[in-house]
Amino acid sequence: MTRTRTPLAGAELSAALFAPRSVALVGASADPAKASSRPLRFLRRNGFGGRVYPINSRENEIGGERAYRSLGDLPEAPDHAFVMTPTAAVVDVVRECGELGVPVVTVLSSGFAESGPEGAARQRELTGTASAAGVRLLGPNSLGLADIRTGLRLTANAAFAESDLPAGNIAVASHSGSMLGALLSRGAARGIGFGRMVSVGSEADLSVGEICSALLDDPDTGGFLLFLESLRHADRLREFAVQAAAHGKPVLAYKLGRSRIAADLALSHTGSLAGADDVAAAFFADCGIARAHTLDGLLEGLPLLERVPITDAPRNDFRVGVVTTTGGGAAMLVDQLGVLGVPVIGPSPNLVERLRAAGAPVTPGAIVDLTLAGTRYPVMSAALDVLLESGEFDLLVAVVGSSARFEPEQAVRPIIERADSSSSRRAFDRDLHGERDTGTTEFRPTTRRNDGDWPRRTGGNEPRRNDGNAATALAAFVVPEAPHAIESLTRAGVPAFRTPESCADAIAAAVGRGLPRALPGVRTGVSRPVRQLDEAASYAVLAVHGVVAAGHRVVAVNADATEALAGLRFPVAVKALSADLGHKSDAGGVRLRLQNPAEVSAAARTIRTDVAAHDGPDITDVLVQEMETGLAEVLVGYRVDPEAGPLVLVALGGVFAEVYADRSLRPAPVDRQTALRMLDEVTGLATVRGLRGATPGDLGALADLVVTMSTLADCADIAEAELNPLLVRAAGEGVVAIDAVVRLYTGTTKENAQ
Amino acid sequence: MTRTRTPLAGAELSAALFAPRSVALVGASADPAKASSRPLRFLRRNGFGGRVYPINSRENEIGGERAYRSLGDLPEAPDHAFVMTPTAAVVDVVRECGELGVPVVTVLSSGFAESGPEGAARQRELTGTASAAGVRLLGPNSLGLADIRTGLRLTANAAFAESDLPAGNIAVASHSGSMLGALLSRGAARGIGFGRMVSVGSEADLSVGEICSALLDDPDTGGFLLFLESLRHADRLREFAVQAAAHGKPVLAYKLGRSRIAADLALSHTGSLAGADDVAAAFFADCGIARAHTLDGLLEGLPLLERVPITDAPRNDFRVGVVTTTGGGAAMLVDQLGVLGVPVIGPSPNLVERLRAAGAPVTPGAIVDLTLAGTRYPVMSAALDVLLESGEFDLLVAVVGSSARFEPEQAVRPIIERADSSSSRRAFDRDLHGERDTGTTEFRPTTRRNDGDWPRRTGGNEPRRNDGNAATALAAFVVPEAPHAIESLTRAGVPAFRTPESCADAIAAAVGRGLPRALPGVRTGVSRPVRQLDEAASYAVLAVHGVVAAGHRVVAVNADATEALAGLRFPVAVKALSADLGHKSDAGGVRLRLQNPAEVSAAARTIRTDVAAHDGPDITDVLVQEMETGLAEVLVGYRVDPEAGPLVLVALGGVFAEVYADRSLRPAPVDRQTALRMLDEVTGLATVRGLRGATPGDLGALADLVVTMSTLADCADIAEAELNPLLVRAAGEGVVAIDAVVRLYTGTTKENAQ
Repeated sequence: MTRTRTPLAGAELSAALFAPRSVALVGASADPAKASSRPLRFLRRNGFGGRVYPINSRENEIGGERAYRSLGDLPEAPDHAFVMTPTAAVVDVVRECGELGVPVVTVLSSGFAESGPEGAARQRELTGTASAAGVRLLGPNSLGLADIRTGLRLTANAAFAESDLPAGNIAVASHSGSMLGALLSRGAARGIGFGRMVSVGSEADLSVGEICSALLDDPDTGGFLLFLESLRHADRLREFAVQAAAHGKPVLAYKLGRSRIAADLALSHTGSLAGADDVAAAFFADCGIARAHTLDGLLEGLPLLERVPITDAPRNDFRVGVVTTTGGGAAMLVDQLGVLGVPVIGPSPNLVERLRAAGAPVTPGAIVDLTLAGTRYPVMSAALDVLLESGEFDLLVAVVGSSARFEPEQAVRPIIERADSSSSRRAFDRDLHGERDTGTTEFRPTTRRNDGDWPRRTGGNEPRRNDGNAATALAAFVVPEAPHAIESLTRAGVPAFRTPESCADAIAAAVGRGLPRALPGVRTGVSRPVRQLDEAASYAVLAVHGVVAAGHRVVAVNADATEALAGLRFPVAVKALSADLGHKSDAGGVRLRLQNPAEVSAAARTIRTDVAAHDGPDITDVLVQEMETGLAEVLVGYRVDPEAGPLVLVALGGVFAEVYADRSLRPAPVDRQTALRMLDEVTGLATVRGLRGATPGDLGALADLVVTMSTLADCADIAEAELNPLLVRAAGEGVVAIDAVVRLYTGTTKENAQ
Repeated sequence: MTRTRTPLAGAELSAALFAPRSVALVGASADPAKASSRPLRFLRRNGFGGRVYPINSRENEIGGERAYRSLGDLPEAPDHAFVMTPTAAVVDVVRECGELGVPVVTVLSSGFAESGPEGAARQRELTGTASAAGVRLLGPNSLGLADIRTGLRLTANAAFAESDLPAGNIAVASHSGSMLGALLSRGAARGIGFGRMVSVGSEADLSVGEICSALLDDPDTGGFLLFLESLRHADRLREFAVQAAAHGKPVLAYKLGRSRIAADLALSHTGSLAGADDVAAAFFADCGIARAHTLDGLLEGLPLLERVPITDAPRNDFRVGVVTTTGGGAAMLVDQLGVLGVPVIGPSPNLVERLRAAGAPVTPGAIVDLTLAGTRYPVMSAALDVLLESGEFDLLVAVVGSSARFEPEQAVRPIIERADSSSSRRAFDRDLHGERDTGTTEFRPTTRRNDGDWPRRTGGNEPRRNDGNAATALAAFVVPEAPHAIESLTRAGVPAFRTPESCADAIAAAVGRGLPRALPGVRTGVSRPVRQLDEAASYAVLAVHGVVAAGHRVVAVNADATEALAGLRFPVAVKALSADLGHKSDAGGVRLRLQNPAEVSAAARTIRTDVAAHDGPDITDVLVQEMETGLAEVLVGYRVDPEAGPLVLVALGGVFAEVYADRSLRPAPVDRQTALRMLDEVTGLATVRGLRGATPGDLGALADLVVTMSTLADCADIAEAELNPLLVRAAGEGVVAIDAVVRLYTGTTKENAQ
C-alpha cells in the first residue's frame, strides 16, 4: 500500500478495517498471560491470511515470530495498526502511522475521554493528530474487531480465543466490547453465526454509523446488531439506517438507559428530555431501527426482521397468529405479546372450518391449539399449510412443546419444511449459519416476497417499501429445552426463539419500526449557551412561523394603560414580562380576570412590588393578554437534543402530564400524519378525543400546530421553544397559546453547518 | 390398604399421591404409540418401587406384564388409581374406586368443565360421586404427577420419558400440564433439579393449595414453583402460602393474564376488577408468594428466594449491589432492575477505599467494576470479601463476563467459594441438585442466617421474620454462554441467572413479597345476584361502619322542602334518589349550587321530568346534600372478587383515574400502614402528597377510611361498596363522601359459611 493523506471511507475503509492485507500489533507482549499478547495468537490460530507484524520496543521475537522494534522498522506500511501501548505513547504512534502512510489505526488503550478532563484533552490531541495525518481512528478504548468468517481477530478480547465459532452474515457494532463475546458465545450455542464484529470504543473518529455504512456493500453482511450505550453521533447513525433500508438490510439495536426515564419526569423543562429513553425510542422508530429490550431478543431477533417487511410507519394492524402443540407455552407468548401491545388474532370461522377439513380439529379462539389433535406430523403440516395460505396473518408463530425435544419429526420438521414458503432466503440462511458457499452467498433482501429482480447493491436512497401483499412470515417458539430443534430451525432460516419474552420482544421490535427518514444536516452534538426570550418576544418569533397566541399588548408599568390596551378584549390577564423570571405565578407575577385599564394598571404595579419581594428582577413592563378558555391545556415543545437532534414534543399541560410522564415525541420536523399519531399516543388527551361524551377538541388544529413547531428544526438559531399551556378548543375552533418561551443560541451556528 | 370412607388429607394424602405403594392404570393401552401406554413404561423405566396394575378391558397382557380386566379383579385396593378411560366411563370408575376403597384417583380424561355446559354437568356428577365415595380426586384433565427423586411417573406427559433427569427438592404444581415438561428440561440443562411435580388439571377436588400444603411436611421439598392460569381456589392457595412461610419454604409463581389489564380499564364499575392482573399481583404480594414475570425467572428464581429473607411487607429499601468483570453486562442488569423499580446502590466512599486497599481498584459509581483490575482470582476474591462483609448490601450480584466460559477459575470460583458465607445451606444445595444423601438432606430454612436452632418442621402458624441482621445474599449473572459455570454455581447453591431479564425479574419478585396474612373464612367463589341500594340507603349502611358523608336529607319531590331541610347548610346539591339509576348526571338527575328550599323544590320537579325524559325511573324522592369542597376527588371501593375474595381499592376520582388505570388494591381487610402504602401507590395522588407546593391533603384520614371500607370484608351481606367521589380536604380536615353506592347479596350467605 502506498502512503496516503486522503482519509479512507466507504469500501476502502471497510477493507482496511476488516480485510487488511497486513497489520501491525503495536505494543504486542511476549508474555502470554498479558492481554496484549492475544491478538497475535488469535490471528495465527484462526488462519488470518494477511501479514502480521508484532512490534515491541524490547523484544526481537514473540511467540516464535520476528518482532520489530518500531513501526519504522517494518518492511511496508501496514493497512491497519492495532495499538496496545501505554496511554501516553498513543498519540506519537498515531502520528508515526500518519507519516508512514498507515491508513487505519485501532486504539485499544484507554485513559482518554472516558477518564475525565485530562483524558478528554488527550483525546482531542489524538483526534487532531489523526485528522491532520489523514489516519482513520477506531477507538480509543476499543477492544478491537474481528471477522469470524476470515480469521481476522484483531482484538484482545478473550471471547475471541475460540476458533470453532460458527460464521454467519450478521455484523455487530458495540459500544461495549465485552458484549461482543456474549453475543458470539450465545449465538454459537443455537446456530447463530456472525461475520464482522467491532468494538467501537469512544468513537473519537469512526462511529457506529460510519463503520456500519462502510459494511453495507459487503455482500456477505446481511443485517446488523447494535449494542449502544448512547445515541452518540446520531446523525451518522441515521444516515446509516437510511442506507441500510435502501439495501434491504435490517438493523436491530439494544440500547442501555431505559430506566433513566424514571428519573426524568420533569416535563416543565423540555430541557430534561436529553437522555430520556423515549427520545431513543422515537429516534430508533424514526430511523427504521428495530429495538430489542431483552438480551435474547437482540440475539434472536434479526432473522425475524428479515421476514417482516418494514412499512411506512410502525404498524398497529399487524396480524400475529399462533399455532401450538402446547396450550401453556402458547398462552405465555400471547400474554407477553399483549403486555407489549401486540394483539394475537384468532382464525376466522371460515378458517377454523378449513383447518378441521384439513385434519386439524381446533376450536375457535385466539390460539390455533392442536393439543386435541395430538402432536403429529400430518396435523401440524396441514395446519401450517392452511394457516400460511389463508392470508389472515402477517406472521404465524408456531409454538412447539415437548415433542421439540423428543420427536422433532412431529412438529418441528413441518415448520422447517415450510421455511421457504414464508421467504426464499436459502443463500442467506446457508450463510447465516456458517455453511458459507462462496459464489452463492450473496444476500438477497426480502422486504418484498418476489425480490429476484431487486437491485442487490444500491447506492440509492429510496427505501424499499412493503408492497402490501407480503406472504405470511413463519417463526417458532420452542417451549422445552431443545437446543437441536432451535439449531435446526435457525439453520433452516426459521426465526426461532427460546423464551416467550424474547419472541414477543422481537415481534414488537419488528412492528415498532417504520421506514427511515433521511434528515440531512441535522444538528446534533450541539450544546451551546442559550438565552431566553421574554414572553412577548417569544410570541413574536413564533408568530413568524404561524403560531397563534391569545391577543396581547406590552404595557409599561408606569404608563397609562388605556391607550395601549385599545382593541383588547376584556377580561385580561396581566403577567410580568421578563426573560429572567422562571415560574411567573410562583413569583407573584400574574394577575387574572382584570376587567378594565384601571385594574390593569393597578395590577401591573402590584406585580412589580410582588416580584421584587420574591427577589425577582425589576419588572418595568407587563404583558396584558385576553383571557381564553379551552377544553384542555396542552404542552407543545421543541428542542435540540444534544444527541438525537431536533425533537418535537406534545404532552398534556398541567400537573398530571408530569405525574404520569405522559408525552409523545419525535425527531423534528414531522408531517401531519405523524403529528396525529403523536396525539394518539398521549393517554391524557383521551377527553379531547371525546372520551365518555366529552366535547371533542380540535385535534386537527393541534396536529397542525405540532407540525408548525416541528419545522423550527429548520431555524438554526432556535434551541428551544415551548407553548405551555396551549388551549385546545372544540373541534373547528382551533388552538391558542397563552404562554410561550423561546431560547436562542447565543453563539454563531457556523460550527454546526454541514 | 383397607377400605376407607374418610377422605384423605395432609401427610396421608401426600403419601397416596406421591408415594403410593400400589397404583392402578385404568385404561392403559397395549399400543405403545398411544399416550395411555406411557405411564406403565415410564414407571418401569424409572424403577418405581411400588406395585403397578395395568387395567384394560380387552387385554390380558401389556408390555409383557399381566393386565387386569377391571379394578375388581385386582388382588388389592391400590393406593392410587390413574384413570385414562374415555370420558363417559370416568364417573363409574371413580364410583368403583370408592366401593373398593381406593383413596385417591387421578383423572387424565378431559371433556369436563373445560368443554362447555354439558361437561360442567359431568364434572359436577364426578365431584359428587367422589365426595360421596370418600375418594380424593386429582383432575380431571390432569396430565398426572411424578416424583423425580423416586421412580414415580404417574403421567402420560411425554416430557417424563427421560430417565436421567436431575432430582432436586423443588416441588411444582401447574395448571398447565405441558409446562411441567418445559421446566424439567430447562432445569436439567442448568443443574436445577425437581422433586414432586403435579399437573392439577381442573381442580374439581384437589387444588394447587391443598396439594402443596400436603407436601409441606416432606423434608425433601424445599420450595415451590407454581404455574397458574387463574386464582381458582385462592382461599386454599392463601392457606398454603401461610403454612409455607411458617415452614420457611418459599413459593414462586408465574401467572398468566397480565395483558388482560389492558382491556380492563373501566374503573367506574369496581365490578370490572374481576380477573384484572393487579388483583393477582396484590393477592400474591399479600400471600408472600413471589411472582415471576419471565419463564427463565420462574425457573431460576427459587434459590434467590431462599437467600432473600421475607419481610413484613414488600421492601422499598432493599439494597442491591453489583460487582462485575464486564461493564456492558452489568449495565444491562442495572438498567433492567431500574425498569422494575429496584435501584442498585454503589459502595460508600469508605467502601471504595477498602476495596482499593484490598487490591480491587474501582472508581465510585453504582457498579463495582473490576474491569480495570482485570479478571483475576485474587481481585474478585478480595472484592467479594470486602463487599459481603461491608453490611452495605442486602444482595450482591456478581456479573461475570467471558471468563465464565473460558477461565471459571478466575471469577466464578471466588463466587462459589463464598456461597456458604451468604447462607449455610449445604444440605439443601446437595439435595437441590440431585446428589441426594439420605439422612442429611433435611431442608433447613434460612430466613435468618444462624438458623441451626430453628424448628425444622413446624405446624405453627407464626411466620418467620427477618431478624434485621441478615447476611448479604450472593447471586450471579453469567453474561456469555457458559453452561458449566451456571451449573457449577447452581450446584454450589449460588442463585445463578443466564439473562439480565431473569435476574432482575427474580430480584424484583423476591423484594415484592411480604409475609403472608392468614385470612380464614374468606369468601371466594361467590358469584351471586346482588341488589343495589340507593344513595341514601348506601350512606346509611356505610355510616354504621363509620363512613362520613356530606350532610343530606331525603325529600319527596312533591313535598314542601322547607321543613325537611331544616339545619342543612346551603348551597346544596339535589340528586335523583333511585336504586335503578346508573349515572345520575347523564340522566339529568343532578342540580348543583341551590341556595334555598324554593330552589330545591323547583330542582326536584325538573329532575323528575328530566329523568323521565331520559327514559329513567319515576323519581319520587331526591337527596339534598350540602355542597362540599376538597383538594382532590378520590374513589374508594370494596368488592368481593369471585377468585381473590374481598378487595379494597383506592384510585383518583374522575376521568384520569380511568384513562391512566391508576389504582391500588389489596385483599381486604387492611391495616392503616398498608392503607398508607396503597395511597403511595396511586400516582395521581401526587398533588395530595404536596407535589410542587400544592396544599397537602389529609392522607391520614383517607387511610383511615380505606381501612374502614376494607373491614366490610367482615360483613357477609355486602357484595360491593363504592365512594366516588370522596373529597380529600387539607391535612387535619378529614375526608367526606359526596356519592356512594352499596350492593347487597340477595341470597342468604349460608352456603358460603366456613
